[in-house]
Amino acid sequence: MAEFIPPLETLVEQFHRLPGVGRKTAERYALSLLKLSEEEAAQFADAILGAKRDIRDCRICHNISVDDVCPICASPDRDVRTLCVVQDARDVMAMERVRAFDGVYHVLGGLLNPRKQQAAEQIRIPELLARVAEGEVEEVILATNPTFEGDTTAIYIANQLSKFPDVRVTRLAYWITVGGDLVYADEVTLTRALQGRNKLN
Amino acid sequence: MAEFIPPLETLVEQFHRLPGVGRKTAERYALSLLKLSEEEAAQFADAILGAKRDIRDCRICHNISVDDVCPICASPDRDVRTLCVVQDARDVMAMERVRAFDGVYHVLGGLLNPRKQQAAEQIRIPELLARVAEGEVEEVILATNPTFEGDTTAIYIANQLSKFPDVRVTRLAYWITVGGDLVYADEVTLTRALQGRNKLN
Repeated sequence: MAEFIPPLETLVEQFHRLPGVGRKTAERYALSLLKLSEEEAAQFADAILGAKRDIRDCRICHNISVDDVCPICASPDRDVRTLCVVQDARDVMAMERVRAFDGVYHVLGGLLNPRKQQAAEQIRIPELLARVAEGEVEEVILATNPTFEGDTTAIYIANQLSKFPDVRVTRLAYWITVGGDLVYADEVTLTRALQGRNKLN
Repeated sequence: MAEFIPPLETLVEQFHRLPGVGRKTAERYALSLLKLSEEEAAQFADAILGAKRDIRDCRICHNISVDDVCPICASPDRDVRTLCVVQDARDVMAMERVRAFDGVYHVLGGLLNPRKQQAAEQIRIPELLARVAEGEVEEVILATNPTFEGDTTAIYIANQLSKFPDVRVTRLAYWITVGGDLVYADEVTLTRALQGRNKLN
């Protein structure tokens, strides 16, 4: 594969690192960026730096947050006895859109993937167990996607939680298409999936 | 559609502006960027600023260039009598990879698109006509993609060039799949398409 001239090649390589972006797509993105004005390009660069600088993980649930503790964890109206475990911040948004859930979240930041050797420690399962060990949680809803990795992760977590016999462990009832993605589920489907959640333990 | 917290939302909007990037994909890109280290995020931002700062259009052919005139136009080994007209810098790369062409290029920077009201002035057709008017060019090869826009653009340019009766106007013989993309053509195919080009005037 031929390379572009250095400053453009560097940009192509950066885009190529984004999830699911192949070489040709990265080239398309990089060339489109050259068509922006100086000011627009600066805005793009600032957006990257700004997001990285101003966004952190909520200390409690690890959802993205501007503050040390996110608005959901900080709210007195949320029921801390019900903990919904999701893959990432987009899933929190999907669940919040539904407005059918008044508990709190735990954001894993990934899923177990034996092929990629993604270990339990890398996806905040120890943090989840520590939260449950504090004793306030009565139910853990495993809302990872109904994919191979999502199911594997849910089963693994359910096993780990068996050391807390008083905690109910449930999984979303997948009216959501098997193999699908929480983020793409419509609101009626997601509400039903939440209402009809199944007990795993 | 729910929005992310502001610094992330800003980043999502930037990615959403890239060609073919929908809202969900932009969210995925933005979240993956948050997983980079501070240093990696800074490298990404620098790559954008660096490419925009250091890359310009070649004054002659409008291909991307670090210098005022690109290496192809600056080379004494290239035949300025044969001018190959392409859509963008990726097409130049595709042609150069083939090593079957020793002429020079004219990069349009787009294609005529009546639906998007992309006019001839926006895609450097006046610049092309000015180059041909200088009298050195003996053949113009129209190598825009064999798509609706690519064909429309080629026909439009061929018409405009009819005022230069001594200039041969040809189009790549499309052994390339109709509706396809020059960038994705393999080298044997592209060499054949070049060798078997058809006279349009």
